[in-house]
Amino acid sequence: MSQSVSRRIVLARRPVGEPKPDDFRMENGPVPATPPGGVLLRTLWLSLDPYMRGRMSDAPSYSPPVGIGEVMVGGTVSEVMESHAEGFRPGDLVEGRTGWQEYAAVDPAKHPGGLRIVPPGPNPPSTALGVLGMPGMTAYCGMLNIGQPKPGETVVVAAAAGPVGSLVGQIAKLHGARAVGIAGGPDKCAHVMGLGFDACLDHRAPDLPGDLAAACPDGVDVYFENVGGAVWDAVLPRLNPFARVPVCGLVSMYNATEAPKGPSQAMLMRAVLTKRLLIRGFIVWDFAAQQDDFLQTVGTWLAEGKVRHQEDIVDGLESAPAAFIGMLKGTNFGKLLVRVAS
Amino acid sequence: MSQSVSRRIVLARRPVGEPKPDDFRMENGPVPATPPGGVLLRTLWLSLDPYMRGRMSDAPSYSPPVGIGEVMVGGTVSEVMESHAEGFRPGDLVEGRTGWQEYAAVDPAKHPGGLRIVPPGPNPPSTALGVLGMPGMTAYCGMLNIGQPKPGETVVVAAAAGPVGSLVGQIAKLHGARAVGIAGGPDKCAHVMGLGFDACLDHRAPDLPGDLAAACPDGVDVYFENVGGAVWDAVLPRLNPFARVPVCGLVSMYNATEAPKGPSQAMLMRAVLTKRLLIRGFIVWDFAAQQDDFLQTVGTWLAEGKVRHQEDIVDGLESAPAAFIGMLKGTNFGKLLVRVAS
Repeated sequence: MSQSVSRRIVLARRPVGEPKPDDFRMENGPVPATPPGGVLLRTLWLSLDPYMRGRMSDAPSYSPPVGIGEVMVGGTVSEVMESHAEGFRPGDLVEGRTGWQEYAAVDPAKHPGGLRIVPPGPNPPSTALGVLGMPGMTAYCGMLNIGQPKPGETVVVAAAAGPVGSLVGQIAKLHGARAVGIAGGPDKCAHVMGLGFDACLDHRAPDLPGDLAAACPDGVDVYFENVGGAVWDAVLPRLNPFARVPVCGLVSMYNATEAPKGPSQAMLMRAVLTKRLLIRGFIVWDFAAQQDDFLQTVGTWLAEGKVRHQEDIVDGLESAPAAFIGMLKGTNFGKLLVRVAS
Repeated sequence: MSQSVSRRIVLARRPVGEPKPDDFRMENGPVPATPPGGVLLRTLWLSLDPYMRGRMSDAPSYSPPVGIGEVMVGGTVSEVMESHAEGFRPGDLVEGRTGWQEYAAVDPAKHPGGLRIVPPGPNPPSTALGVLGMPGMTAYCGMLNIGQPKPGETVVVAAAAGPVGSLVGQIAKLHGARAVGIAGGPDKCAHVMGLGFDACLDHRAPDLPGDLAAACPDGVDVYFENVGGAVWDAVLPRLNPFARVPVCGLVSMYNATEAPKGPSQAMLMRAVLTKRLLIRGFIVWDFAAQQDDFLQTVGTWLAEGKVRHQEDIVDGLESAPAAFIGMLKGTNFGKLLVRVAS
């Protein structure tokens, strides 16, 4: 064991609106003992993702909240330090959900979602948290099951420089569709264009609805919804008949402290009827049975250079809260990862 | 030919809000000549349906509006009086869309949606406009393709005494689900209960949300949306994770003259995400390929008494405007039909 202390970050209190550094607390504890039938894991990479904001609140949602004083949830890539579990050997890299901490003692049979060995291969282990992890699978499964882009159609996605949006657009292109991204600022838009998108709009520009209409002269057939708010308000009038709207996130609302304003839900239902829209919410694990297909398909695309990805790496567990707070404001550039150890 | 004058009802002007009698105009014309390759039809039954309100307006929708001075659209069952068309003989009964008029000259090859012979059989010809027609197929295709009720689930439908809602609930029961109807007044609720629904709520009662919660202790898995408004507002909080919402109509909004109030569409999108809802708009002809299956399946159910239906019949073409205006207020009781001739 290289050290005897394991640091962890717990939820100190529930945020009101935008999370603040004091909503988190760093704690020290002993490196846990390896349990019978289990493994001791040392965290190498911690993934920071928008869904975590929801888990900090106790509003009803698809998952229970993190309790006050509990370790913040999060996907990780870790190294097996010691193993009493069949199929796991010291030195193996595993992807799991061990949260914001340096060490974790885990029984693989009881770990939520399982502990998956990240095999050696052409793609680096950190990709197991991004383009080959939960965000990538969100894009892949949402597009294949709900979006279903067809050649010549127009696909719009926001947060297009992020790990979900960037893959959504690249999948659209691989299916022969047009890809129109929306991102925050000229640098991100330039990056998105470099991924092969046909257009990328800056959501900070003064006339997003006008820009969107110009970029989508044939309307919008798939809108992959991950942000909500003003982007959704701009996209809705551009949706074509039979458009599909996979909904995997609403980042713009996560810090909201009051009910959002805007057109009434009755107006949305009228659009659903008159345009025969399909709107479907999902989380990636609704499609858990497709994980092998996803890893095989997108892993090959990535290794062959057919899709590209971008990582935004911060160093040290102590950097996680500030990086997470920034991500909710869009300050990250690509998949946000904390290098906890190396 | 039994008469030389054919009466027809045309759209005199576009209604503002609730349609008024003066929005329609009765005209007399000659009985048309039978066209080459066509048939002369004498209308026996005219169907009155909520979608017609949309066709009276020129707001964008899935179908173009009826022009001012044009015959009102509508489904009909007619008798072939004279035929120059292969496959049609005098005395045949046909289902088509010849509108609010006593006679129509039609080229079957060019008639929108085709002209379908209504074969003799155990079910009376008028059912071709109701339980075995467009409303019935709307219920059948919406439930099979989108609602997909499973044993033990709870299905909620409004306008449950109407031709769509009554079949939705009966299909739910045939699939082993619970059926909860919503209807206007105790008489309609009693009728709905007689069809085998597990509960029927009066939407005029003072606390629809509370009544709905009591009638759906396990939440709502399928909400078949045909009315919108206060019913939808009451149902949305009761929807279970993975609930399905086929949307075929929003009758409560058809006469609206101002934008509806209520929760913002962002709140609806949040529910879509956190509950992973599926919301999909459709019109029956999106599933045109399933018509034979529908006619076979529901026709057998009806003949065997496994489903029942209710017709509300008014006599004479001149009765159509008042009956239609009343239907939008819910004064009809079952499938509303005009007996134009017999």
